[in-house]
Amino acid sequence: MNQRVFSGMRPTGKLHLGHMAGALINWVKLQDDHECYYSIVDWHALMSDYADSSRLRDNCREILLDWLAVGLDPEKCTIFVQSHVLQHAELSLALSMVTPLGWLERCPTYKEQILNLQNKDLSTYAFLGYPVLMAADILLYKAGQVPVGVDQSAHLELSRELARRFNQFFGEVFPEPQALLTPNPKMPGTDGRKMSKSYGNSLNIADEPKELWEKLRPMVTDPARYRRSDPGDPDKCPVWDLHRFFNQDLEERKELEQGCRNAGIGCVDCKKKLFVHVEKMMVPIQERRRAFAAREETLTDILRHGADRARGTAAATMEEVYRAIGFYR
Amino acid sequence: MNQRVFSGMRPTGKLHLGHMAGALINWVKLQDDHECYYSIVDWHALMSDYADSSRLRDNCREILLDWLAVGLDPEKCTIFVQSHVLQHAELSLALSMVTPLGWLERCPTYKEQILNLQNKDLSTYAFLGYPVLMAADILLYKAGQVPVGVDQSAHLELSRELARRFNQFFGEVFPEPQALLTPNPKMPGTDGRKMSKSYGNSLNIADEPKELWEKLRPMVTDPARYRRSDPGDPDKCPVWDLHRFFNQDLEERKELEQGCRNAGIGCVDCKKKLFVHVEKMMVPIQERRRAFAAREETLTDILRHGADRARGTAAATMEEVYRAIGFYR
Repeated sequence: MNQRVFSGMRPTGKLHLGHMAGALINWVKLQDDHECYYSIVDWHALMSDYADSSRLRDNCREILLDWLAVGLDPEKCTIFVQSHVLQHAELSLALSMVTPLGWLERCPTYKEQILNLQNKDLSTYAFLGYPVLMAADILLYKAGQVPVGVDQSAHLELSRELARRFNQFFGEVFPEPQALLTPNPKMPGTDGRKMSKSYGNSLNIADEPKELWEKLRPMVTDPARYRRSDPGDPDKCPVWDLHRFFNQDLEERKELEQGCRNAGIGCVDCKKKLFVHVEKMMVPIQERRRAFAAREETLTDILRHGADRARGTAAATMEEVYRAIGFYR
Repeated sequence: MNQRVFSGMRPTGKLHLGHMAGALINWVKLQDDHECYYSIVDWHALMSDYADSSRLRDNCREILLDWLAVGLDPEKCTIFVQSHVLQHAELSLALSMVTPLGWLERCPTYKEQILNLQNKDLSTYAFLGYPVLMAADILLYKAGQVPVGVDQSAHLELSRELARRFNQFFGEVFPEPQALLTPNPKMPGTDGRKMSKSYGNSLNIADEPKELWEKLRPMVTDPARYRRSDPGDPDKCPVWDLHRFFNQDLEERKELEQGCRNAGIGCVDCKKKLFVHVEKMMVPIQERRRAFAAREETLTDILRHGADRARGTAAATMEEVYRAIGFYR
């Protein structure tokens, strides 16, 4: 079993607890027993933000801080910025040679994104080709496993098809990457919907405890529980989903659940209990974040070493690609 | 006036006298008073030949030999293979971010090529984007002048538009390349049509004198001159077009013209006279070609030094591009 893992995130702003619970915690676990490449995919961010790229630099730095804060360890995994490794562009160009236009035009996530981001003009050549660049990201490291959410499985399917198609024309170079389905606990935003920056309902990794509490305090709960004296249903309460993630004190959780169902405790009290656990998990993370944020040189070094390491693997893959295609070297 | 020149040729086989007369002779002149970048654009060749790339390596070598044979001098100009300079792929990716899909779909040469090459499946992502890669080729060197044939002016227009569009989003980085319209003497093939490998009517730069004569001897002449005793019209004779290019002895040309018009000489005699001049021009070229062909290491060195020099310029341009876009470095 190929134990090499690739994953990436678009630097479009500060990460929230949804990113942490759904991806980063898994990434941190994977770094212990897999060879992991984690990339800040700035080219992908530029695809949608080309009309105003002024936040690109800061967003890359913020996402790096978030990653380091939650425990990604540059000694255990390779952390790098996509654009620092030229071979991503190069392999993308190579794959594009054998990519049928129809595959891209019919890609369901392409149509969906165009609809979702109607305030942005995404009818560009780059955006049509983003699954090609994404395939290049993965195949460049011959990653056997890609931790993905269910909604990304279509992309991975295209990456697999491109690997097959390249191999068919030029000989066996790329393994087909497999989806590594990782636990993705429910992490609702303050309004009860899926946590998302675009909904303005996020609890960010970088939010100070005070900010977190200010967001948690007015957070929606079981909508049927109008009054303090009404019994509640934890299964319909978004705050309860957060308890499930943050509160590992099962005894306390049992009491709270009962208290909710028989109106023994109010929502604010329940949130206060939650906040204790949120603080317990987030304060050390934020301390690490602040410590890294104060060491600009360390950040630069981490990315430089990461890019060097990634480039080594990428260059070796490209050597095989050159040979397979038959370039004159 | 920006004196930097970029031009490229797709390595798809041996070059013929049409390439020599229409482009290479101008390139050789330009290298004396311009900073010239001449690129063997192998990525562009791969776009149409991805289904069988087995000739790519040899074709690159052949085109290099043809270039050196006609007098391109690696001391005076920068000769390199496109894929040796990764920045071509990188800048192409950067430009693709701001390339409207419609510009490519409506590109007249795109539709034309799809029709022309119906035996190849060109409905790939790469082929749709070949004007973007072409723009990257030129803009990477901030070339102010691009020697082009009239049929390529649409490509250059797109390169100019992409330069403007990039500058508009990210700030002034790229000069708009100008077309350098260079003399393009008429060079018909042996059947009287435009000389072209696909017509099978080519006289190749590498053809030995014996081969050249075997192709010239049966070459079509004024179609109205059936018999030796019929008077001919040089203006309707493709062999006469070759005289105009190869034969600089104006006295002799005057005699031949008269002899044709009054049936004083036959076509074979006229071709024999032509062949003397063809030999005179081509034999030294072919000697140079053979000499280079025997020095494999020299070829490698030329391309290595060329790529190093091109990479220097390309990397400097990309530094500006990173800064302009605002990448995290």
